[in-house]
This record gives sequence, structure tokens and C-alpha cells, in this order.
Amino acid sequence: MTTAVRAIILLSGGMDSATCLSIARSQQRICHTLAFDYGQRHRQELSAAQQLSQVLGASDHRLITLDTAAFAGSALTDPSIALPTTPSESIPATYVPARNTVFLAMALAYAEVRAAEEIWIGVNAIDYSGYPDCRPEFIDAFARMAALANRTGIAGQPIRIVAPLQHCSKAEIIRQGTRLGIDYSLTISCYQADSQGLACGQCDACRLRHQGFVDATIADNTRYLPSVPVNSLNGMV
Amino acid sequence: MTTAVRAIILLSGGMDSATCLSIARSQQRICHTLAFDYGQRHRQELSAAQQLSQVLGASDHRLITLDTAAFAGSALTDPSIALPTTPSESIPATYVPARNTVFLAMALAYAEVRAAEEIWIGVNAIDYSGYPDCRPEFIDAFARMAALANRTGIAGQPIRIVAPLQHCSKAEIIRQGTRLGIDYSLTISCYQADSQGLACGQCDACRLRHQGFVDATIADNTRYLPSVPVNSLNGMV
Repeated sequence: MTTAVRAIILLSGGMDSATCLSIARSQQRICHTLAFDYGQRHRQELSAAQQLSQVLGASDHRLITLDTAAFAGSALTDPSIALPTTPSESIPATYVPARNTVFLAMALAYAEVRAAEEIWIGVNAIDYSGYPDCRPEFIDAFARMAALANRTGIAGQPIRIVAPLQHCSKAEIIRQGTRLGIDYSLTISCYQADSQGLACGQCDACRLRHQGFVDATIADNTRYLPSVPVNSLNGMV
Repeated sequence: MTTAVRAIILLSGGMDSATCLSIARSQQRICHTLAFDYGQRHRQELSAAQQLSQVLGASDHRLITLDTAAFAGSALTDPSIALPTTPSESIPATYVPARNTVFLAMALAYAEVRAAEEIWIGVNAIDYSGYPDCRPEFIDAFARMAALANRTGIAGQPIRIVAPLQHCSKAEIIRQGTRLGIDYSLTISCYQADSQGLACGQCDACRLRHQGFVDATIADNTRYLPSVPVNSLNGMV
């Protein structure tokens, strides 16, 4: 008899991390989800994360508040910086300094406390075009560091960093999640969702998400603001 | 004309990080000190850090509060776990899961926000006998990861992780700091200092610290509890 593997799942409330959680559950992981309040512009994604944790079968959910002083200077946390409306060739203004390093570091501590063997993170091909800390070489370097950082690593059983969507497009993610039965209308990607979690249809995240549905030939059931007719998005992307 | 180098200094209120700050100042760094409230047993070391930052010439000091859920299960944060009174051959009970990984990750975010080129950390030879995340191979792996993690790393100018005490004994640290004029009575090492910051003279940290003064043949000016005659410590170490 083998013991079930415990996993910490970084869960943002967006579609990628929700898909991660579903894949982990489909592989019989016992899942402890973890979300971070780091002063992001809207809190609806934190509520979405909590709901998704339950709906998708995690054992429990934890919200960790991060002191936002270290995260100043990003359009995601600073209302005085404009959100970009077109995809960027360089690092986007929505980049948050060292965000994934901090999230994974906190997850590493939490994994040790929960006796988890794995940390799952939903970084993917679309993100790592712009964000340095979404690239496979970053994830690999973090895993090598983590193997030296803690008690289980020293004992020859390093905590594994699992990034199953690393080489997937948004369309592939949506297809995979849909097969696993995820209701993506529960996820929020929009950088500026309103107080009910309705998406703007204008920002980078909305455009990438919608294009994913189009490419996957799956109906986009995102909850948009009434002023955003889904059909018009096709022309915008 | 060269621009002065900015550095983030991890400052705990203990003697190692105070010595780090003094070395950085002696090398003309502009220093931004950073301390963490992670639910440690006593808060006097946080006051000590703030005072040391000023006395030793840092530009400013910042205290970051960490959500302690991720740090459960250590004798340093959980009053129900007994503090060790003898040095341990294995990882001590005072080990806090992934602590230095989290501290360095937060410092990496803060360094980017403050446009600092360096992060200084006071890990040393005494510590890394027991703590996995004080060993040189961990620090090196963190630096390699950090070079891939953020904006400056991508631009070919990774933030440097500076650990000047890595290969120093406590006696060497005390000699170096004394030459730089540090008043070590302002630092707190004791795991269970009282509300005035007076040291117990009993715990691992007190014993290692006192032995450092003995080995350096420098008078131990630590502020001990009145019940701890310094002379008797020599027999205890």
C-alpha cells in the first residue's frame, strides 16, 4: 500500500492554477491550496480561489497575507501605474518584483509544515514570454535551491516543484481543464474585475484568456461586464 | 565618478547581521535594513534591529510582518516545543522551515523596489553546522535562482547575494565587528531574552555567543539576567 502524496497548490483564482489543482486531484494528490493577499488591485480573485479550492476537491485552503512594502512599483499593486491594454514585447508593467520567488518560498515553508512532498504552480508558456519568473529555467533553479534549503532536502527527499502547464498554450490549458470538468466561469483572470468579479474584456489578461477559448473552440463562459459583448472580443484580440 | 552601491541588509538584531551591516557600511554601501516579524518568541530582537540600523549608519529600516502559518512547528515560534540547551548534531529544534529562503525572497523583491544591487546576509560557519539554509551551497543556489528571477537578472545585472561571514567562526566575527566599533551589548542572540532584552545564558545561542567572546579574548559585554554570573558561563560552554 502506498501513502497518498500531499501537495501544496498555489491557487490564484485564475484559470491556470485552477487547472493545476484539477490535474493534481486527477492524480490522487491530497491538496492543500494556498493563496496570497499581496495588495492586488481587486480581491475577487481571492474569493474565487477559496471557492475553487472547495469545488475542485482540495482538503483545505489557506490565505497568507504578504506585507506589500516589498511589492511596490507594479501596475498590479499600485493604482497610480496604468494597466497595459496591449501585449508587451518586454517585461509588462504588471510584473510584480520577485513574486513567484516569494510565493514558492512561502509554499516551501508551508510544505514542510504540512508534510507535503510537492508544490504545484501554474506557470505557462503565455506568461513566460514576459515574466522572468515564469520561465522553465527559473522553475528549475528554484527546485535546485529548494533541494538544499530544508529538512527534507537534506534527508535526500527534496520537495518537488511541479509545473504541469509550463509548455501549454492557453487553449491547451482550457481544453485540459474542460476535460477535467472545470467550470471556468468560477475563475477570474481580469486585472481589473469589478466588485462582483465581472471581467473588463479590455486588459491583457482578458484578451489572452478570450483568445484561449477561441483557439480551443470552446465557448467563452467568462462573466464579463454587461457592456462587453463577447462577440466583439474576437475583433479586439 | 561611480555611483554608490545600494544594499539590502537582513538585520535580525543579533551579532552576525549587525556585523554584516558594519562591514557593508565600511565598504561605502548605502544600506536599507530589513527585519522580519515571523512570530518569534520575543520581540526584543526586533527593537534591537531597529536601534542597530540607526547606530550603525543604515539609511532606513523596514520591518516586514510574515504570516506565521507557514512557520509553525519550530521551537522558535511555537511555545509548546522545548528550547534545546545543548548543541545538536542534527538539525536543531529551533530550525524554522525555509526561513532564509523566505527572507531572501522578500529581500529580492525589496531590492528591486529600492534599486539595490546587493543583498547581505549574515549566515556563518557556526550556523551552517545545523541549519540547511545557512550552508554556502544553499546561498550559491539561491543566487543562481535569483539571477533568473527578476528584471535586473534578465538585464544581465543579477542582484548579488553577499555573505561575508560565511566562513567565519563566532570569534572571528566578534573580532571583526569590534575592530569596526560595534557595541555588541546592543545585539541580542538569546532565544528567550526577557522583556528588557536580558539574555538567559542557558540556551544554545547564549552559549555559542559567549564562547565566541572567550575565543576572541574580548570581554563579553552581553546584557545577561542578574542571575547569570558571566564567569560561570565559561564552565557551561
